[in-house]
Amino acid sequence: MALVLVGLIWRHSGMSKRVNVGLIGAGRIGRLHGRHLAHRVDVANLAAIADINLESAQELAGELGVGIALDDPRRIMDDESIEAVAICSSTDTHAEMIEAAALAGKHVFCEKPIDRDLARIDQVLKAVDSAGVKLQVGFNRRFDASFSQARELVAQGRIGVPQILRITSRDPQPPPIAYIRVSGGIFMDMTIHDFDMARFLIGAEAEDIFATGGVMIDPEIGQAGDIDTAVTILRFENGVIGTIDNSRRAAYGYDQRVEVFGSEGVILVSNKKPDEVAVSDGHGTHAALPLFFFVERYVDAYLAEMKAFVEAVQHDTVPLVTGRDGREAVVMAYAARLSYRENRPVLLREVDPSR
Amino acid sequence: MALVLVGLIWRHSGMSKRVNVGLIGAGRIGRLHGRHLAHRVDVANLAAIADINLESAQELAGELGVGIALDDPRRIMDDESIEAVAICSSTDTHAEMIEAAALAGKHVFCEKPIDRDLARIDQVLKAVDSAGVKLQVGFNRRFDASFSQARELVAQGRIGVPQILRITSRDPQPPPIAYIRVSGGIFMDMTIHDFDMARFLIGAEAEDIFATGGVMIDPEIGQAGDIDTAVTILRFENGVIGTIDNSRRAAYGYDQRVEVFGSEGVILVSNKKPDEVAVSDGHGTHAALPLFFFVERYVDAYLAEMKAFVEAVQHDTVPLVTGRDGREAVVMAYAARLSYRENRPVLLREVDPSR
Amino acid sequence: MALVLVGLIWRHSGMSKRVNVGLIGAGRIGRLHGRHLAHRVDVANLAAIADINLESAQELAGELGVGIALDDPRRIMDDESIEAVAICSSTDTHAEMIEAAALAGKHVFCEKPIDRDLARIDQVLKAVDSAGVKLQVGFNRRFDASFSQARELVAQGRIGVPQILRITSRDPQPPPIAYIRVSGGIFMDMTIHDFDMARFLIGAEAEDIFATGGVMIDPEIGQAGDIDTAVTILRFENGVIGTIDNSRRAAYGYDQRVEVFGSEGVILVSNKKPDEVAVSDGHGTHAALPLFFFVERYVDAYLAEMKAFVEAVQHDTVPLVTGRDGREAVVMAYAARLSYRENRPVLLREVDPSR
Amino acid sequence: MALVLVGLIWRHSGMSKRVNVGLIGAGRIGRLHGRHLAHRVDVANLAAIADINLESAQELAGELGVGIALDDPRRIMDDESIEAVAICSSTDTHAEMIEAAALAGKHVFCEKPIDRDLARIDQVLKAVDSAGVKLQVGFNRRFDASFSQARELVAQGRIGVPQILRITSRDPQPPPIAYIRVSGGIFMDMTIHDFDMARFLIGAEAEDIFATGGVMIDPEIGQAGDIDTAVTILRFENGVIGTIDNSRRAAYGYDQRVEVFGSEGVILVSNKKPDEVAVSDGHGTHAALPLFFFVERYVDAYLAEMKAFVEAVQHDTVPLVTGRDGREAVVMAYAARLSYRENRPVLLREVDPSR
Repeated sequence: MALVLVGLIWRHSGMSKRVNVGLIGAGRIGRLHGRHLAHRVDVANLAAIADINLESAQELAGELGVGIALDDPRRIMDDESIEAVAICSSTDTHAEMIEAAALAGKHVFCEKPIDRDLARIDQVLKAVDSAGVKLQVGFNRRFDASFSQARELVAQGRIGVPQILRITSRDPQPPPIAYIRVSGGIFMDMTIHDFDMARFLIGAEAEDIFATGGVMIDPEIGQAGDIDTAVTILRFENGVIGTIDNSRRAAYGYDQRVEVFGSEGVILVSNKKPDEVAVSDGHGTHAALPLFFFVERYVDAYLAEMKAFVEAVQHDTVPLVTGRDGREAVVMAYAARLSYRENRPVLLREVDPSR
Repeated sequence: MALVLVGLIWRHSGMSKRVNVGLIGAGRIGRLHGRHLAHRVDVANLAAIADINLESAQELAGELGVGIALDDPRRIMDDESIEAVAICSSTDTHAEMIEAAALAGKHVFCEKPIDRDLARIDQVLKAVDSAGVKLQVGFNRRFDASFSQARELVAQGRIGVPQILRITSRDPQPPPIAYIRVSGGIFMDMTIHDFDMARFLIGAEAEDIFATGGVMIDPEIGQAGDIDTAVTILRFENGVIGTIDNSRRAAYGYDQRVEVFGSEGVILVSNKKPDEVAVSDGHGTHAALPLFFFVERYVDAYLAEMKAFVEAVQHDTVPLVTGRDGREAVVMAYAARLSYRENRPVLLREVDPSR
Repeated sequence: MALVLVGLIWRHSGMSKRVNVGLIGAGRIGRLHGRHLAHRVDVANLAAIADINLESAQELAGELGVGIALDDPRRIMDDESIEAVAICSSTDTHAEMIEAAALAGKHVFCEKPIDRDLARIDQVLKAVDSAGVKLQVGFNRRFDASFSQARELVAQGRIGVPQILRITSRDPQPPPIAYIRVSGGIFMDMTIHDFDMARFLIGAEAEDIFATGGVMIDPEIGQAGDIDTAVTILRFENGVIGTIDNSRRAAYGYDQRVEVFGSEGVILVSNKKPDEVAVSDGHGTHAALPLFFFVERYVDAYLAEMKAFVEAVQHDTVPLVTGRDGREAVVMAYAARLSYRENRPVLLREVDPSR
Repeated sequence: MALVLVGLIWRHSGMSKRVNVGLIGAGRIGRLHGRHLAHRVDVANLAAIADINLESAQELAGELGVGIALDDPRRIMDDESIEAVAICSSTDTHAEMIEAAALAGKHVFCEKPIDRDLARIDQVLKAVDSAGVKLQVGFNRRFDASFSQARELVAQGRIGVPQILRITSRDPQPPPIAYIRVSGGIFMDMTIHDFDMARFLIGAEAEDIFATGGVMIDPEIGQAGDIDTAVTILRFENGVIGTIDNSRRAAYGYDQRVEVFGSEGVILVSNKKPDEVAVSDGHGTHAALPLFFFVERYVDAYLAEMKAFVEAVQHDTVPLVTGRDGREAVVMAYAARLSYRENRPVLLREVDPSR
């Protein structure tokens, strides 16, 4: 396999300057973000792709017409023409990559979580602050049309004062046991998205958390030291009570719903389906299941998220999801984990000395 | 404004050969198809763009990284490396362009209608047949996830023998009066999509048509010699009875629904919304309106349509929408127009001497 | 079997006077109305029940605690304490019964149709007018919560000026062939309800009708001289275009929907289900079928209808469904039948000399 | 006001024997059950009505054609022809009435709760057991078409092994503060229905409860020593985790939903609306709110409940809701109250010494 030149890319010299972005990590999520950066985020120019597996980087570069494919992300950090990086490498490299990028003065988009260790996150955030660069964490669901609309309605007071929040978040199938082992546990790996969604929707901080759950799907998950089903109650500083329920396996697919109940009404976000077909026969009326999993369900959200990041860089505005948001969700995961272990409500300040 | 070289496009030499496509017409729909051909149809290579307005062609070429921008489509026809063309120029040029492409041995995707004149269509189809090239007509709705699923279910016998068909097809707002004047009338311009959908869903031909309607929205539409509201009954050769209702203005947006009723059940396709949010307050439960208009509603269908065309070229298969399909919908528009004028059911063979 | 006295009925002498009603016909629909009159219409007193089959009358009287059971309805007409009658005997007796009741000065509720012959209806209406009694015809669907709400919204101008009407009216199963033979045909027997619904919803009269249809379900229905599937287009004097589709057999049950489209919006009435349960499993999301047939679907409407009749008598107001309404639906059935036979639109004045 | 004889009730001597029932309490809920017993439960004969307010008893007796109206329920207990009583008097009289009825050998239907004191309930249940009579407690929601269908589906294994339960139970408006003061608190007065529903749906017992909540609607409720918003987590002996959320005031009306998630699927019960009308205009699609409150929402369930009770008496079967069910819901209310006060999960055996 060799690379051949198949085209030239011309651009009108008068067009507004694009943001040069370097992609770090050409795995599943890196390829998704790479395609968006290359072709669907008008203000971005995907300038280089790095992956420790050089062939992966080259293959994606070839597909997307990107001139530079590398096996060492440091060379992206050294490239002065690159203003921003999208970090899609494995979770254990996130902290190091963000620090390197910050040191190099580059703005950072990073997949969640920043790190699974709170002290390490604080180091990273300090580095980001010192460098004065932007950091957007990959809580993509905030950019979903339905959830952002729900947030907007809450913020506008459409349902009065929020009182009760409910999040349903169930996966169609559990990840491999090998992944479970290094995932940090269900609260750190799965509920973390819902912790962020809860804060986003309510616009306030949780004060304490009570978490419960069990192994209901696969005993191997239990043997790996994790649970596969969890119900979490959040009590917010403003009095709102939130409930999250998680399952690693919903037979009917990816179940992603929220409900915000307030003094003047309720907002319900239901699942998104692949089609609007209903069939009635002698047995009932039948409709499609939800879109299968996060790639299908959140494809538009991933695009909107990356677009928002590049625009935040271009217009020098604060990203919708900041490093502090990334940190807060991890604090909540800490509290949930402790609550589950000790079977009691845990205050966030018990696990976060900075509060 | 000048073009500057901003990148090179490399491709793995071992990858399966892409189909070189030339785009004719860089207006609204041309830009939409152009973006898909350039970036989202993996097996296509958008090689050249032509528009009588050179600047439009150049602008789109610049945006999409296409090396060749022309003001004369004939130069696309002359380019031997180009295997297929996508015709998105104005309706009155379709016939001529298809003939030129066929003569040049290129496969053709053409927006609907082939022509508004049946005799002219027959000439074009003869040219296409003689040349042995493929012709796919732009009835994009067939590629919509819901409608193609409905067709699949009917074809599988999921609802038994089809008996009654209902199509609701209403636009959010009428086109400008200037457009109405040259549109060929509501049946040729608007219902034509529904005629094709009816044939597609039922998998049979209409035998006769009874059409009625009136000017209910805007008297200027009447003064331009057209109507703005129409109800059409189709009687199919296999006995199915179909009803189509059209309005040029639905206050709540683009209304695109179908219902197929059969001996064993019914299929309903409802509208697609931009989000899955419902708000309940003291007055009721409120949900979003349908996606605004055809670009929003059918964006995925436009992509699937173009992908299907390029794959039909690549694999040498028959397109899902053929020239004959394009012709048949025009025959139906003829019959509906005559029925409306004479207030009586009109047999298709009255307007189509070839039957 | 003998009757035994099991109780006395006491009433507060000070309560407002109830309307004494005599029930004629103790068949299926008679029993339904009888139960409502006896126990659920507070202002009614079911005073007597007559049926040519005395045992039926006695059985129902026993069940409902009614003191008088007769085999001759004339004795009800002769009973001066009875102010109103509910005629639920077979269709061929309606005209005669209404005339007898009118002559006796009694107000009349009569199941639809008044008669299948227009000239006979005119005689009956003349008798009713001369007697100055009220006549309410049994178009029960007007009293359904959803349809009456739809009518109310149209009348209030909630959707602006109505433009298009659609009625779906499909039965879960055809009646016996013996019934089909004497039914007067699908338009007179089944569509007649939809003709009334159309007039009710739009609040205007039809000008002409185009009807089509066929035998798609059971060839025996064809041999009996009828069709089992029909699509009817109504053009109203105010320009509205209505479509009705009927089937004698919907595999998924009783399908009763309407849609009214106007300049400012659309009203959709969907089917009513026996429960609000949805089950999602690995194959899809499944919900209940519509309520089985007219007794289940319209039980509340039957009650509201009877209550409205008795209240109209009590308060001396005009019933919501008059004799003229009963006549008009028959005129429409005449026109639809002729249109079907001659395959052309038929003006109502062609079949109704009084226009 | 005086009673006058207005009719005789005859019955076929051959019909199967009805159950004579005495009604105790002619207030709002007593009148509702009285109407059902008199006219809509075929196998019942409402023989007598007692209320400490004699006029209330007489008025209802007059309306329903019941011969006996009393101010002292003991006279019902003494009437040997009466086999069963329906106790609809105030909560503080329930225990005493049940004991008196049991002593008199009568089967008992009693509105919930049996008593608010667990020790007193145990006395009552002992009396019922000793007498060998049936006791059905008024958890009417079990008889709702949707909830009973949901239970049936769970019991059949339609969704595999149940794992997560969610109940939404919100009232349209809080009761008067005077009522709040004597209600026993939100868990005893409102959540008690949901505790029963949870046990009914899952078919297992709760092991512990964690409850939280607050005063979010009306400070006066707080001043009365109660809360108006509560979220409760139930952990069942079989591992299922249930969440209940309650609010005393939902702006959009009576919100009564459940969700049961299991290894093979999910069951959702949504709200029941007064009509099936949806209106789309330029602002959105609008549908009706849920049925207003318990009388409207559960009218069919109240009827089914009473029918089931009388049939259990007639056929000597165990009622669907027993005295033990009534007791268990109170135990759960005890545990929830304690959990709320102490902000910790409470085992049911902490509050129920009999476990």
